Amino acid sequence: MKRLESSGKGRVRFAKSNSDEHRPATFEPFDTKHGTPRAPTTQGLSVLDVDMRAAENKRAHNTISYKNTNLIVRRNQEFFITIRFDQPFNNQRDNVQMEFRIGNSPDENKGTYIVLPIGKEKPDARWRSRAVDIQGNYVTVGVTSDASCIIGRFQTFIVVVSDFGKQRTERNTATDFYVLFNPWDPEDQVYISNENQRQEYVLNDVGIIYNGEINNIGSRSWNFGQFEQGVLDACLFVLDAGKVPLLYRGNATQIVRQGSALMNAQDDNGVLVGNWSEDYSVGTAPTAWTGSTEILLKYAREGGVPVCFAQCWVYAGVLNSFMRCLGIPTRLITNYCSAHDNTGNLKTDIVLDEDGRVDRSRTRDSVWNYHCWNEVYMKRPDLPDKFSGWQVIDSTPQETSDGLYRCGPTSVIAIKDGELSYPFDARFVFAELNSDVIYRQSDKYGNTSILRVDTAYVGRLLVTKRVNANSYEDVTSNYKYPEGSERDKQTMRNAENRGAPTRDYLPQPQPQPQPQPEARVTMDIQADTIKMGDNFKLTLNINNQTSRTCTINATITGCVSFYTGVVSTTFKLENKAATVNPQNTSKLQINVQAMEYMPYLVEQANLLFVVNGRIQETGQTLSAMRVITLRPPELTIKVNGIPRVGKDLMVLVSFRNPFTFLLTNVQLRLDAVGLLPTRIKSYNQIPPGGSVQYTEVITPQTPGRKVLIGSLDCAALRQVTNQLEIMVNY
Amino acid sequence: MKRLESSGKGRVRFAKSNSDEHRPATFEPFDTKHGTPRAPTTQGLSVLDVDMRAAENKRAHNTISYKNTNLIVRRNQEFFITIRFDQPFNNQRDNVQMEFRIGNSPDENKGTYIVLPIGKEKPDARWRSRAVDIQGNYVTVGVTSDASCIIGRFQTFIVVVSDFGKQRTERNTATDFYVLFNPWDPEDQVYISNENQRQEYVLNDVGIIYNGEINNIGSRSWNFGQFEQGVLDACLFVLDAGKVPLLYRGNATQIVRQGSALMNAQDDNGVLVGNWSEDYSVGTAPTAWTGSTEILLKYAREGGVPVCFAQCWVYAGVLNSFMRCLGIPTRLITNYCSAHDNTGNLKTDIVLDEDGRVDRSRTRDSVWNYHCWNEVYMKRPDLPDKFSGWQVIDSTPQETSDGLYRCGPTSVIAIKDGELSYPFDARFVFAELNSDVIYRQSDKYGNTSILRVDTAYVGRLLVTKRVNANSYEDVTSNYKYPEGSERDKQTMRNAENRGAPTRDYLPQPQPQPQPQPEARVTMDIQADTIKMGDNFKLTLNINNQTSRTCTINATITGCVSFYTGVVSTTFKLENKAATVNPQNTSKLQINVQAMEYMPYLVEQANLLFVVNGRIQETGQTLSAMRVITLRPPELTIKVNGIPRVGKDLMVLVSFRNPFTFLLTNVQLRLDAVGLLPTRIKSYNQIPPGGSVQYTEVITPQTPGRKVLIGSLDCAALRQVTNQLEIMVNY
Repeated sequence: MKRLESSGKGRVRFAKSNSDEHRPATFEPFDTKHGTPRAPTTQGLSVLDVDMRAAENKRAHNTISYKNTNLIVRRNQEFFITIRFDQPFNNQRDNVQMEFRIGNSPDENKGTYIVLPIGKEKPDARWRSRAVDIQGNYVTVGVTSDASCIIGRFQTFIVVVSDFGKQRTERNTATDFYVLFNPWDPEDQVYISNENQRQEYVLNDVGIIYNGEINNIGSRSWNFGQFEQGVLDACLFVLDAGKVPLLYRGNATQIVRQGSALMNAQDDNGVLVGNWSEDYSVGTAPTAWTGSTEILLKYAREGGVPVCFAQCWVYAGVLNSFMRCLGIPTRLITNYCSAHDNTGNLKTDIVLDEDGRVDRSRTRDSVWNYHCWNEVYMKRPDLPDKFSGWQVIDSTPQETSDGLYRCGPTSVIAIKDGELSYPFDARFVFAELNSDVIYRQSDKYGNTSILRVDTAYVGRLLVTKRVNANSYEDVTSNYKYPEGSERDKQTMRNAENRGAPTRDYLPQPQPQPQPQPEARVTMDIQADTIKMGDNFKLTLNINNQTSRTCTINATITGCVSFYTGVVSTTFKLENKAATVNPQNTSKLQINVQAMEYMPYLVEQANLLFVVNGRIQETGQTLSAMRVITLRPPELTIKVNGIPRVGKDLMVLVSFRNPFTFLLTNVQLRLDAVGLLPTRIKSYNQIPPGGSVQYTEVITPQTPGRKVLIGSLDCAALRQVTNQLEIMVNY
Repeated sequence: MKRLESSGKGRVRFAKSNSDEHRPATFEPFDTKHGTPRAPTTQGLSVLDVDMRAAENKRAHNTISYKNTNLIVRRNQEFFITIRFDQPFNNQRDNVQMEFRIGNSPDENKGTYIVLPIGKEKPDARWRSRAVDIQGNYVTVGVTSDASCIIGRFQTFIVVVSDFGKQRTERNTATDFYVLFNPWDPEDQVYISNENQRQEYVLNDVGIIYNGEINNIGSRSWNFGQFEQGVLDACLFVLDAGKVPLLYRGNATQIVRQGSALMNAQDDNGVLVGNWSEDYSVGTAPTAWTGSTEILLKYAREGGVPVCFAQCWVYAGVLNSFMRCLGIPTRLITNYCSAHDNTGNLKTDIVLDEDGRVDRSRTRDSVWNYHCWNEVYMKRPDLPDKFSGWQVIDSTPQETSDGLYRCGPTSVIAIKDGELSYPFDARFVFAELNSDVIYRQSDKYGNTSILRVDTAYVGRLLVTKRVNANSYEDVTSNYKYPEGSERDKQTMRNAENRGAPTRDYLPQPQPQPQPQPEARVTMDIQADTIKMGDNFKLTLNINNQTSRTCTINATITGCVSFYTGVVSTTFKLENKAATVNPQNTSKLQINVQAMEYMPYLVEQANLLFVVNGRIQETGQTLSAMRVITLRPPELTIKVNGIPRVGKDLMVLVSFRNPFTFLLTNVQLRLDAVGLLPTRIKSYNQIPPGGSVQYTEVITPQTPGRKVLIGSLDCAALRQVTNQLEIMVNY
């Protein structure tokens, strides 16, 4: 029996690349076996030139900032093309078509091949065209793509149809054009009504990423760079490398879901390799990056080799660039005290040993000081209407149940209301914000009991950069009702009705022997802002609200820790005793020397202090915990001269090593969106007390606000960043 | 600064294998630095024997059919273990614990480590135990797992706690036991209330798979073999090979979602490699398999190398075995005229050329004669209550938007009501059933227009094997309201509100020039059952309802086609003319010779006839289409003797080659669930008219209904199957 070449399944490999092209023939003769062709005769009309009128169209489409010579338009908004023929165009006689093509198998049914007649109506067409001006040899055509059109780079051909066939213009990359999402158009899935929001969430190419910890919020500027030369092509390359079918590229839900998967290298060789190991010697430390441009361009230039290395804010920064570049309103969110509830059970289990210390071998979950993700603004046609609006996406690779390293889009409103049934990944995001922290203690027989449940520790503050300002906006109330409120309880009940585990540990927590709740002894740790390398003091306040004197023996443990809450070396272990009178507060001072912690510091310089106390008289145990983020030494950025378009300006970046040890293999980065590509300067060493200064001369090309972003990085010192905003005038 | 071994992210690798073990120490001394241990002293009590009472417990747990010497229990149902000590057990004095462990990092919080005291209450415990009988040295304990317990193989240890430490019994695989889902327990996620249904959907190890085409429904028996020796271990191996975290293995939603992904080799080296190419020389043809046992055992034996080859019914057959083996009620569904709407737009676009023939290069979608998937019965705690019940899962690898080759679980009720917002993959399943078939015709200018829309062609009949009977049950009404009914329209509106594309082509289909609808000329093709290799006749009925005589010129095209609707060679092209009087029917006879189609037949032997006619008088065009599935030659299965337990019985399988050509490299398979492992017999050739007979002597070990399943397979002849049911008595 005959062997067939083709598969009996007829499975189709869809076009999955924008850069793969199908080159159409310049002449396609008609097959005349069916008699005389019915096409009207054209007397040798031919096309001399196609002018995409890029500058004028781009101004109208809010795409003028893209450093790209080709036309860039937004969906469902008219743009104009002027075609020059070799003789006057006759609307009645001449049969001329515009063809727009994308990918290697253009197909009219699939939106990858658009054919529009010039000067005639075409029924049943998604894209529309009209001849707006016919002047002798020149015809100007208005073209409007449909509101759900595929995003990407299209090719333009003009076809003259004669009795004998179709005569097509040669492939000319100068007539290629890009179609982007259109947040200005009410018909677009990503429409957002407020112009200030569009300016911030689509057009702002610099942003602020908040970090640190909830009591000491830090920030760094980030170059999103979505308009920089090559970035739009790099973003389309990301979709090509990720084999996202062209067919899905008009669907914002798909683009953001696939995009969140493609920012990380897991599974799919996406853009960034995650690394939390402290060893970044084969790449760039996550803390060293100043923006996304460098990363996206490197990924594209190297043909899809994942870039080393990222942690959460780098993923969020690059995902933000990707979305804004394609025209999707996006912002970067920082969640303070973010649970990484790896088991998806809405509980973060912290297992303590008999001495009250975290038993790392038995503690699988963790609470990060902060975690960054993104929100995109869009309609969700796949969900009930009320779930449209901001959606969470997160490309930091995590252990999820659904098998792929990606997360979202999940509706922020659904999270707030505990509506966890709807796609995608609502349960995971809900847990990051609403996990209960359960402190368990296990005895030597292997029996564990619940020591304490903290329902309020996780998801305490969510922030994003404010629109048109350099401060943060508190968006916690978008995600959560006030802790303990009736609506909050309703949300938790909804979540349980949607499969979240019952919080059966809440009604009967195993009580510790304690005095009456209204008369207790409490403890807290007080600290000021502390510079890295300084000796400093902590104050332990012990407040005795009871009517009896109490004697406390306290163990103070000091560890260095990561922003992920993972604890590294213990550098301090000290016992203190205090006697506190009834209705009184005692203060114990804890002295910490730089030499104690400096040798052990890990990136982002967090110190974790845990105090466990025992009251002799009652046997009651007390505990207090405090994370302190040390302030790194300063990087100074200055300019000499008044910033003017076309005038040279000197930028000076300087740093002094305040420590008593040598800094080696130091990398200095300077990034200035719209002013210069990322500059990297290396120093073999900076001796104790020594300084370096880096100077760069720049010539602003455009007026307006510009941000210079600097970072200094070496193995012994990370997260040294600064920024300087300048206003360039004519 | 110090380099750390550990990762700063603290990412946890969960236990993902049931077969990886953690070997606990047989003696764990207590650390006595904290003073005197508080455990009661036991006077050298030691454990002599642990009896899992497998036979008795298995009868009570509906697991007696598993050919496995270990204990197998179902969740949340008590089972009994008897422990023999070296001296009388004293409930007051002795501190003895049972330990059940699974995986390489047993953890009480995660349900992978269960500790139960003997003879004492344990608060806060999910699993329960009680001493039901203490007789001297013998203690019988009743143990009940919790209703959401992890499914898999647990290890049993008995621990005697003394002043000095814990004395543990040695690892003994004879005391290992399996925990399965429990469809008999109302608390279980997979509870199904009807006992007949449990007998069919959980305990029946033979089934029927329906195939053929909607006008000629075929069937074949399938050996699910879920109780055969090694199959349960193979199913757990599938989960291990797929790295499904143990933590998720108590969640039926997760098990069925991961299971559907793991049946196919795409992405994850799952069980079966799909192949629709007609070249199966490096493996077994999909049509040749007689059941799942052989496939699952081969996959496990070879350590996870995907087995070659499968098409949809093989995937569905093996998935059915996997689910029933783990205790999840499951059935196999066949959907006739199943759309493979690869673009997810609820349209199946068929593009015709100018002559009305399918333009394969432009037709991406297809309608399969039939497609098989599975339904599992379960609560969906993640969704609103009404969506519990039967859920579709499908492991045939298809092009889906969500990136992984898997599908479901998706609620059948949600599909029926067009509620497409809920996970998982509702849209894809909905399209398989509800796609509109749109016939488009394109002219030479590249303009396509809609010729005809058929809203009723797809998803016309869904069937499954009836409970306790060998006939099919029509389950179409579970999935769809009657076509065109008010409820049906409501479903389509719901689907559109949940993001399905608007069917804007429906109100204004491009009309063909036609006479009044009440007076038309119609055409259909009539055929009887036809044996492969026969010459046969088709009748073309032309019915003229108009008041005028009409003359028809018809082109008859005959092609061979795959069950996937993909068309292969055209073997017939014939023109016929007829004159039909008003209000009359003419019959045209089409003669087809075996020699015309036999050289081109492809597997499953479908012939597709398309007739295109043109009425001279009016210019009206007519078309008719008919798929004919040829009946393959017969495989005969007989037994000699009366089937009795313990008595030899002779099975004879015979086949005669009715063709005029040689059959080469013929494989004969005989499978009989519970009677013998799959037997494969090879014949180098069977000459034209020649016969083969294969004889096997079997000795039934258990009474009851048994099914002998045979298949004969070679490149020139596929899908030759038969079965014989016998009743074995004592």
